[in-house]
Amino acid sequence: MSIQPVPAFEPPYVMAVFSNVRTADDSGYPDTLTRMKEIVQGNPGYLGYESARTPDGLGITVAYFRNHESLTAWREDLEHQAAMKQGRNDWYESYTLHVATVERSHGFVRNG
Amino acid sequence: MSIQPVPAFEPPYVMAVFSNVRTADDSGYPDTLTRMKEIVQGNPGYLGYESARTPDGLGITVAYFRNHESLTAWREDLEHQAAMKQGRNDWYESYTLHVATVERSHGFVRNG
Repeated sequence: MSIQPVPAFEPPYVMAVFSNVRTADDSGYPDTLTRMKEIVQGNPGYLGYESARTPDGLGITVAYFRNHESLTAWREDLEHQAAMKQGRNDWYESYTLHVATVERSHGFVRNG
Repeated sequence: MSIQPVPAFEPPYVMAVFSNVRTADDSGYPDTLTRMKEIVQGNPGYLGYESARTPDGLGITVAYFRNHESLTAWREDLEHQAAMKQGRNDWYESYTLHVATVERSHGFVRNG
């Protein structure tokens, strides 16, 4: 099985949970999502990203960063800011963002 | 639309992200999940819970607590400990747990 959770990193690190419900408006959304992934992966403090959505439409995306400076650079990116604005205008019915410092983490992988 | 993200709470609060890939073994899993939700919702510091899974099997569950004492009580619950053990034995191919303090949060809801 190749799919894997993002691993545990050495604390402290930063985690942003973005949970959301989309509108029916998909115009420009897939391309912007692809572009946002390119930008965030170019962030020197980017550690990882994972995302899932329920059949009834609740999406949860988690992005992991080495420190708050990295997350600030991502938040202040101009293309990201334009995407966030379009998100409020068009793509999201509702969302919540929780920004946190990870103090403890661990992982488990079954023996092969 | 009735589905909603867990809202933003007044920081600081605590958030645990549990991302996981399941095995094919479903024996006892749904009942245990139902029981675990009952227990965690009875925790006085429980704030909320949200969970989603991708079509290819990556699950993300986020639980929110008022403080670390509440999360510790949840971690030390004996039924929860038994469930965690069975999870490693039977239900999970891999998982990561990230425990964090939320320092900043905000929400958006589209005007009706």
